[in-house]
Amino acid sequence: MNTFGNIFRLTTFGESHGPAVGGVIDGLPAGFHISISEIQNALDRRRPGTGHGVSPRQESDRLQILSGLMSLDECGEPIPFSPDKDTAITLGTPVGFMIPNTDARSSAYDHLREVYRPNHADFTYDRKYGLRDWRGGGRSSGRETVARVVAGSFASQLLATRGITVHAAVSELGGCPDTHDFNKILEETKNACDSVGATVTCSIHGLPAGIGEPVFGKLQQMLASAMLSIGGVHGFEYGDGFALCGMKGSEAADRMSSDGFLSNHCGGILGGISTGQEILFRVGFKPTPSIAIPLNTIDANGHQTEVKTSGRHDPCIAIRGAEVIKAMTAIVLLDACMMDLSAKNIFSDR
Amino acid sequence: MNTFGNIFRLTTFGESHGPAVGGVIDGLPAGFHISISEIQNALDRRRPGTGHGVSPRQESDRLQILSGLMSLDECGEPIPFSPDKDTAITLGTPVGFMIPNTDARSSAYDHLREVYRPNHADFTYDRKYGLRDWRGGGRSSGRETVARVVAGSFASQLLATRGITVHAAVSELGGCPDTHDFNKILEETKNACDSVGATVTCSIHGLPAGIGEPVFGKLQQMLASAMLSIGGVHGFEYGDGFALCGMKGSEAADRMSSDGFLSNHCGGILGGISTGQEILFRVGFKPTPSIAIPLNTIDANGHQTEVKTSGRHDPCIAIRGAEVIKAMTAIVLLDACMMDLSAKNIFSDR
Amino acid sequence: MNTFGNIFRLTTFGESHGPAVGGVIDGLPAGFHISISEIQNALDRRRPGTGHGVSPRQESDRLQILSGLMSLDECGEPIPFSPDKDTAITLGTPVGFMIPNTDARSSAYDHLREVYRPNHADFTYDRKYGLRDWRGGGRSSGRETVARVVAGSFASQLLATRGITVHAAVSELGGCPDTHDFNKILEETKNACDSVGATVTCSIHGLPAGIGEPVFGKLQQMLASAMLSIGGVHGFEYGDGFALCGMKGSEAADRMSSDGFLSNHCGGILGGISTGQEILFRVGFKPTPSIAIPLNTIDANGHQTEVKTSGRHDPCIAIRGAEVIKAMTAIVLLDACMMDLSAKNIFSDR
Amino acid sequence: MNTFGNIFRLTTFGESHGPAVGGVIDGLPAGFHISISEIQNALDRRRPGTGHGVSPRQESDRLQILSGLMSLDECGEPIPFSPDKDTAITLGTPVGFMIPNTDARSSAYDHLREVYRPNHADFTYDRKYGLRDWRGGGRSSGRETVARVVAGSFASQLLATRGITVHAAVSELGGCPDTHDFNKILEETKNACDSVGATVTCSIHGLPAGIGEPVFGKLQQMLASAMLSIGGVHGFEYGDGFALCGMKGSEAADRMSSDGFLSNHCGGILGGISTGQEILFRVGFKPTPSIAIPLNTIDANGHQTEVKTSGRHDPCIAIRGAEVIKAMTAIVLLDACMMDLSAKNIFSDR
Repeated sequence: MNTFGNIFRLTTFGESHGPAVGGVIDGLPAGFHISISEIQNALDRRRPGTGHGVSPRQESDRLQILSGLMSLDECGEPIPFSPDKDTAITLGTPVGFMIPNTDARSSAYDHLREVYRPNHADFTYDRKYGLRDWRGGGRSSGRETVARVVAGSFASQLLATRGITVHAAVSELGGCPDTHDFNKILEETKNACDSVGATVTCSIHGLPAGIGEPVFGKLQQMLASAMLSIGGVHGFEYGDGFALCGMKGSEAADRMSSDGFLSNHCGGILGGISTGQEILFRVGFKPTPSIAIPLNTIDANGHQTEVKTSGRHDPCIAIRGAEVIKAMTAIVLLDACMMDLSAKNIFSDR
Repeated sequence: MNTFGNIFRLTTFGESHGPAVGGVIDGLPAGFHISISEIQNALDRRRPGTGHGVSPRQESDRLQILSGLMSLDECGEPIPFSPDKDTAITLGTPVGFMIPNTDARSSAYDHLREVYRPNHADFTYDRKYGLRDWRGGGRSSGRETVARVVAGSFASQLLATRGITVHAAVSELGGCPDTHDFNKILEETKNACDSVGATVTCSIHGLPAGIGEPVFGKLQQMLASAMLSIGGVHGFEYGDGFALCGMKGSEAADRMSSDGFLSNHCGGILGGISTGQEILFRVGFKPTPSIAIPLNTIDANGHQTEVKTSGRHDPCIAIRGAEVIKAMTAIVLLDACMMDLSAKNIFSDR
Repeated sequence: MNTFGNIFRLTTFGESHGPAVGGVIDGLPAGFHISISEIQNALDRRRPGTGHGVSPRQESDRLQILSGLMSLDECGEPIPFSPDKDTAITLGTPVGFMIPNTDARSSAYDHLREVYRPNHADFTYDRKYGLRDWRGGGRSSGRETVARVVAGSFASQLLATRGITVHAAVSELGGCPDTHDFNKILEETKNACDSVGATVTCSIHGLPAGIGEPVFGKLQQMLASAMLSIGGVHGFEYGDGFALCGMKGSEAADRMSSDGFLSNHCGGILGGISTGQEILFRVGFKPTPSIAIPLNTIDANGHQTEVKTSGRHDPCIAIRGAEVIKAMTAIVLLDACMMDLSAKNIFSDR
Repeated sequence: MNTFGNIFRLTTFGESHGPAVGGVIDGLPAGFHISISEIQNALDRRRPGTGHGVSPRQESDRLQILSGLMSLDECGEPIPFSPDKDTAITLGTPVGFMIPNTDARSSAYDHLREVYRPNHADFTYDRKYGLRDWRGGGRSSGRETVARVVAGSFASQLLATRGITVHAAVSELGGCPDTHDFNKILEETKNACDSVGATVTCSIHGLPAGIGEPVFGKLQQMLASAMLSIGGVHGFEYGDGFALCGMKGSEAADRMSSDGFLSNHCGGILGGISTGQEILFRVGFKPTPSIAIPLNTIDANGHQTEVKTSGRHDPCIAIRGAEVIKAMTAIVLLDACMMDLSAKNIFSDR
């Protein structure tokens, strides 16, 4: 269960402090131009140590392309892939890639070998697998998301050729919706050795009407599945979301005129299919579980102990999480576009 | 995309006013006893016309089993399947089933043939497929969920043999959390020819620790996907959900003692895997889009018109929706159990 | 594992003497005209009791469409589905269908309840599932293939609109390649209470170059998977097949001129992708295992016994099998076309 | 379509002369001991340049493990993965791995950039994708199979713990079944600048009865799919295979006594499920298409030309192919075991 998607598919691998994290992107159509630096830029935005509220772990996050692309020379002719050429072309074959783990200070985790950190997956991985890589959360680490960001950049670049764009940003932090106060809250949180939750709002523009596959491939379903696959996410709502639970049908109705829809309570999706309007959804993140405040817990033998996670951790995972949300959204959209077209346009001269 | 699940899988078919709705349940292990009346009871709870706040459409919803089961005689010996015997046994082969559409007053929908009802899927189905069955929403109708309720009952009966149970009920209606006021609100809503949204809370008991498949088969991800596949659902949150966005890490932490977890902010899931605690999640429904208040809309030619949906409709879809949530939850849980065990217990003498 | 295909998918259900056999066809594009009588004709060709060498079981094999189609009236306008109208139109939603089992003389099988018929699946179903429907082979019966023939007819009708056709016929019977002798061999076999094996040759015309998905969705792989899923099939080869094992590279080479390929040893597929030539493959069937000659066997308790299958059985399953091969080939081709186009033509203005 | 399997799944990537070939193995249960040198030995057996009849391309084929494993120290305790420790333990997380392409003399292929080599996939890749990596066949190269051999070794090591073993070897070469003459034939073929086809026979021992999933996951179907996914394979037959087409039912019957089956014409599979007997199948390979004899062909512009493939090529691909067959068979068997057990043993106290 390390594969996401139907036609456009991402398979990921990698533990936080193993040799590398990476993945395989399958289903990319052939002949598309890909900017390698654009992928690297996305990785850099997700990277720890690049801003307020993000962990100072020093990973260069250098992308290594292993297959599926050729580079383009000055005349636009395909040549063997070289990381020094910015523009590459897709071959239609799977893109294998990896990012080596370089700043993996494994020994810093020795004391956690037998301890279950509260609100981490330590306890559940042990229960499920009988053993776990204790270093930095192993497979359950947020580091796994670099593979999603790489695949998301491929998807975004293809979607952009059709005018489809995705935007995501923290819209509420620790209950505060005023973005001007965010840095102050993060600073205070860090000083208190604590962490804080946040909400990310994501919007999609340019998606034509008709995308999404009833009844078990609904667009909101694929988006929810993508969002809830991200570590730390506890909620998903689209359109007016949970606010609709308190509304009347007459208030929630998106009336239409010959100019189109007169409102967008439904968030741009009806019956699992895009309406052509802006698509809007919100994602709720819990606070970073790793905090430098001592917490009661137990070890693998069930004995009472205490754990305090000092060191390199984000006070708010949602900040880097927004980049992951963008990536997963792009992956969902490209997949949904390919599924729709496979069923509709193919035998299209009807 | 009319199939849900990985090992335990449901494929559904059927339009609201076509010949029948039904499905195929695949992956049922052999040799399990199934009570046919228990399935019928679940169908009856979901059925229109059986209570406050539900549509008076008169469907008998008589289940027809087409394959996959034999009946048991008095001595517990398998005999050819008969609907008159309550206890059947699974053969390990797929269960085909159908529920004929009997009260399908198709002509009542003639005026909707060319009109897009606001907040329905009429517009998007037309955009996607170029044609649609206009009668009662066709494939996008809530009637499709009878197939889910049947499969959910099979799953529930298997889960019950392992002590795993699911409960779901409306916890908030039109913004009001006091269950005593629900009938009054529904009555007022119906009298106003309007509808109202609601929240359903679902809890799972008895699920052992270790269920759920990282990183793209996380338990919360499968649940979210299941919930957002239900028509009218606009939000999903588990544990403390969106409230976590306003909390500190030190508040949200589920500390542990040698007696186990001291709280359950995480909703019984960590890293996508069950903790063994109660699992809790909430699902938000929009108000029923079909209301008897005239709404501005357009027809298939883009001309301005008005539509009013008089007749047989629930003032609140969440009431019958709770039964569908229970069904989908059971389907997810059985599938998740089978996936976990396939990877863990099989080569189990390590 | 009762689903076949990737985008165009068939899920089947049904035991030989249960209430019905049937299936769900998913992935059909919307807006295609389907002739119901053409499906029924295909069923009739596969039906027992319609010729030399086929079983006289009397099944009317009346197809019941349950969803996914509307009928067309005289003006070509969609109306509610009626089995009396020959032309229907696909809605893009799943087509549920069933064929009731009417001539299911269950009691005729009472003596087989505890006996393992040689070369049947009785023994293995018991080992796998712990119980089985002993009547006529239950799920392992050839009767299951009626669902494939229905889906195959849908696929064939779509492929025909693009000029793609499939032909299959017995090319060798009991080792004899002279078709004029086939009826005589069948007559002699029947008189000897025995059965006989045969080879079916299948050819595909009109498939454009470029269809098939490397490396695990190769066209020959999908065809082999489809063929070996048919009961009684023991071999598959394409192009020159096993004869290539005795050839030199210089003999097997399909040289090219500016007019195209100069030969077709490769059977119209290179690297898993169609060349645009005729595609040719052969399928080997074992003799019908049910014969009226007594055979040594054991019962469920391991005791030695003897079994003789008198009654309604084909002396050669390949004769009706050819219709199933045609159906499965059409299913593979439509699926392969949809997969190719989803990856290539969709973002087609590059 | 670069993923194979259902629960135990392999996703591969890589072009012959790109940066690397590799894959991701998903579904490995946790806690199994894996010998790294055993994987390397399998790679070495498949490697070019190690015997009669195989290409002298010099690839060291050094396996790099990227995730999913920890090493074991002297006390059998997990430590960070190191390629220097032979014994590793599975974490239950996906195993990413790669083999860099080191001896990739790309420039040697410059003259093939625009030429379609007969019986290669050059023509079809161009038709499908519009472009291709022309160096050594790109994605269609046999080099892709190294990833299968790695995954196959993991599967074999798990199967061996349950006493399940796979054996495969060339049984007929250029029509000759006498193994003593094989080297002579290969030598003569090489001297004639030609190549030759061959048949590989594969046998499975120790597989218990009950493995295989009707009706679209039959054991012979999964094996056929696996075999036909290997480049150069043109035929598959199991048990008596195509010979059954010339047999009577009374000859082909595998009678039973209380001691078990009295013969094995069916090849150890009935109804898609293993009988517990030895499983036997044969795979037919075409001659290596790359030969040093000039062949008429065309270039990408359709102009007539000639091509001669001098250099590093096997006179018979089946010799290394046998190792790939063993690998794919092990992958199928482990997957089939996991699927069976997921549906049977899990709820096993019935």
